[in-house]
Amino acid sequence: MRSLLLAAAILAVPAAAQEPNRRSPNEIVAAAPASEWVSIAPSDLLVMTLAPDARGKPRQVVIQLMPPPFSQGWVENIRALAKARWYDGLSVNRVQDNYVVQWGDPDGEDAAKAKKLPAGLRVMKDGDYLATVVGDDLLKRTRWPDNYAGFATFKNGWPLGTSMKSVHSFDYQSWPVHCYGMVGVGRGMPPDTGSGAELYAVIGHAPRHLDRNIALVGRVVEGIEHLSSLPRGTEALGFYKTAAERVPIVSIRLASDLPEADPASSSEAVGQQTRPRFEYLSTESATFAAYAEARANRRDPFFIQPAGGADICNIPVPVRRAAD
Amino acid sequence: MRSLLLAAAILAVPAAAQEPNRRSPNEIVAAAPASEWVSIAPSDLLVMTLAPDARGKPRQVVIQLMPPPFSQGWVENIRALAKARWYDGLSVNRVQDNYVVQWGDPDGEDAAKAKKLPAGLRVMKDGDYLATVVGDDLLKRTRWPDNYAGFATFKNGWPLGTSMKSVHSFDYQSWPVHCYGMVGVGRGMPPDTGSGAELYAVIGHAPRHLDRNIALVGRVVEGIEHLSSLPRGTEALGFYKTAAERVPIVSIRLASDLPEADPASSSEAVGQQTRPRFEYLSTESATFAAYAEARANRRDPFFIQPAGGADICNIPVPVRRAAD
Repeated sequence: MRSLLLAAAILAVPAAAQEPNRRSPNEIVAAAPASEWVSIAPSDLLVMTLAPDARGKPRQVVIQLMPPPFSQGWVENIRALAKARWYDGLSVNRVQDNYVVQWGDPDGEDAAKAKKLPAGLRVMKDGDYLATVVGDDLLKRTRWPDNYAGFATFKNGWPLGTSMKSVHSFDYQSWPVHCYGMVGVGRGMPPDTGSGAELYAVIGHAPRHLDRNIALVGRVVEGIEHLSSLPRGTEALGFYKTAAERVPIVSIRLASDLPEADPASSSEAVGQQTRPRFEYLSTESATFAAYAEARANRRDPFFIQPAGGADICNIPVPVRRAAD
Repeated sequence: MRSLLLAAAILAVPAAAQEPNRRSPNEIVAAAPASEWVSIAPSDLLVMTLAPDARGKPRQVVIQLMPPPFSQGWVENIRALAKARWYDGLSVNRVQDNYVVQWGDPDGEDAAKAKKLPAGLRVMKDGDYLATVVGDDLLKRTRWPDNYAGFATFKNGWPLGTSMKSVHSFDYQSWPVHCYGMVGVGRGMPPDTGSGAELYAVIGHAPRHLDRNIALVGRVVEGIEHLSSLPRGTEALGFYKTAAERVPIVSIRLASDLPEADPASSSEAVGQQTRPRFEYLSTESATFAAYAEARANRRDPFFIQPAGGADICNIPVPVRRAAD
């Protein structure tokens, strides 16, 4: 039965990737040629600076925003809120173990005290939750069985759930999935869809039941430990009980609004933020195929029993700082 | 294709559980009759007391040990080590984000400095890693498709991976799986199997590739936040760089070695540990079937799109404090 379930995934892995070797997934990625790494545009990177921790250490979290065709209404709102410096001075208000860290205006649900949102934000419709794309080219890509969507796959650097649109066609629909580190848009009860003013990051086992119920707008690519190691809130849903427990947000900026690092200048020495540069391993590359196969079939020396399969969220897309 | 993959799980759910309703999984569990809760024996509970946190708050983690037929050699060693008070004074030495927290003797790999183990510990064989049980009664139980094992199921309160022993028989083999909060036995390279002196808990997305590669001996049933919110180590694999970063373990005791709480005594008032009592929701109960179905098909008011399936590790077995 296992062979039945995994047949689709195995058939679609290039033959070269199936040759047994003892390299670990990380070793495979380290050997990727430069041509397989894709730069992330500075306008797709959000830099969140939290107040320093109790020992005075700086805390910076970098988020990659979701590319088209998914969730672009919310992503545009988030860019507008960052440009307006609207998030500055807000806080992390909720940390629920094995679930999410959430940040935004702690008074957001109190109309009298809520921080005023800038004009011009887009209001998304109810159906925008689903954020699916129909007519996808699934059959050309490696597929993994998936309990939530039917299949899972990777495209343009992101993990997607995929299923047939109907049993009468070969059209597929795809949507982004809630893996560890993914960032989504907090909302109230439907038909509210959230604006992007309230965001959360996943810090536990993938809560895939949220897929197509909340808009995903990105993923943490650096500094997730500054969110995942925060004290858990003791109120319902992990909200902090007191204002003193909240973690202040100093600023949230688009990387494209930060100055480029200048080796000739001393700006970094005095603590001024400069633009970070990141790149991801192309999910369409030969190295990614070999990496994903190795995540499913560990043969490096520690392992005795390769699994023969993997969960889409246990194949994190490699992302790294790019050389200047 | 989704319907094919999920057919086994859906067919095996009792018809009553499929009636649409708007109760959340937690509401379903809250309505379970007392008869569906199973007491955990005090000899199956391990109470780990860490040093208080920076603000002086106590930190206690309770672990339920794995019942037969799995991993009993290591479980017996852990009971012997706790009875010998061998763990007392050791520390949490490794915290790797989205992976594991590990504790034991920080000098364990230095023969000259390592803390001497008590005599009489069992030495397990290489094949004991696999910890499988053949001839399982899988066909009588609710099954979930699983990318790692073929199928996953629950038995006697634990999540198990299950696959056919061979394509020529209807014999199944089962083994415990690495979900969030599961506790396992650290080891070096094979054929080392570890003794139980070095333990870890999962604090991230289920690292299911470790199944059948490391022995699982239990799960955290209370206080996981005292492990998951620890600062991440900055050395390779998340080890702490300095001894000062390690988190001291005050004691690890079997609950059966702690005195029972006595309402007439003031022992609790002066901080003496008393025996905690826990119970889990029978995974063979009607309520668990309805709960698991609701985890896969959220219909409570926040949700718009029920998933139609779930990952075995996204159906945590409910465990709670029992009334005295």
